[in-house]
Amino acid sequence: MHLESTIRTVPDFPKPGIMFKDITTMLKDPAAFRECIDRFEQMYRGMGVQKVVAIESRGFIIGAALADRLGAGFVPVRKPGKLPAAVLREEYALEYGTDAIEIHTDAVLKGEKVLLHDDVLATGGTMKAASSLVERLGGEIVGLSFIIELAFLSPRTKLPGYDIRSLITYDAE
Amino acid sequence: MHLESTIRTVPDFPKPGIMFKDITTMLKDPAAFRECIDRFEQMYRGMGVQKVVAIESRGFIIGAALADRLGAGFVPVRKPGKLPAAVLREEYALEYGTDAIEIHTDAVLKGEKVLLHDDVLATGGTMKAASSLVERLGGEIVGLSFIIELAFLSPRTKLPGYDIRSLITYDAE
Repeated sequence: MHLESTIRTVPDFPKPGIMFKDITTMLKDPAAFRECIDRFEQMYRGMGVQKVVAIESRGFIIGAALADRLGAGFVPVRKPGKLPAAVLREEYALEYGTDAIEIHTDAVLKGEKVLLHDDVLATGGTMKAASSLVERLGGEIVGLSFIIELAFLSPRTKLPGYDIRSLITYDAE
Repeated sequence: MHLESTIRTVPDFPKPGIMFKDITTMLKDPAAFRECIDRFEQMYRGMGVQKVVAIESRGFIIGAALADRLGAGFVPVRKPGKLPAAVLREEYALEYGTDAIEIHTDAVLKGEKVLLHDDVLATGGTMKAASSLVERLGGEIVGLSFIIELAFLSPRTKLPGYDIRSLITYDAE
């Protein structure tokens, strides 16, 4: 299956000039949804992944199904104030201002093998912050995984040294 | 496994007096995470579920893994402004004021068998709104599924006529 053909491009969302890649058309299609998870499972099976850490909230979808396939635990990284127990926080720069994400301090143990997941790799800022959270807890990052990579934003320059895998890469907007 | 023992109660979250049921301690435990999905799969396998409709954002986690297990498509219900294409919106009452959720108009086809999922059944207001969205699209609701049911809030009185299943029920706070 040509997974890319199941992604819908929505112009001017969330603001004028942005060509938004909408994965909901892939997720609702049982064959495409399954193939997306199949491909990730094939990439990471046998690598000893103990935790899949996924970023709120679209990252939860494939991240959770993949954790189930790999027999791993699932860990959410969330916006500030959403996680109820003790957290670590990491800030990151936006086009204007800053944002932050948090992880529970007991979510990842020292030395655990962690696969990080988000739906889209754009500038790389959010994933860099999530990777820092996992490393501050002592987790060993096995890889960073994305459904979509917006290569024209050069996100890999922000994430040197990591094994980065994406199912669909857009070289131009 | 006694799933309930993997749920953490966090006092005074998100505000004083609330005893918050934290599922992250279950999700991060590979055996508990798997058992949670196993139990739902056993409940709904063979019922012809074509779409799992899950509510943002904790509902995405088990909802997506369950859709994968059942060979169904996955559909997110989200807060206003998050879904990029044409949507239906449903408002529901909060303790003070109102909130709303949305679904893509092309997410569920007329006559499709739909399983709805959220992590917690509290007052039932959000799930009632989500059920209305699915019915407005012509979906046939097979069941409403939750990890946790706060029975002391009497949510089932708001959801008459539905097949409601929860893994863990709390009869008192």
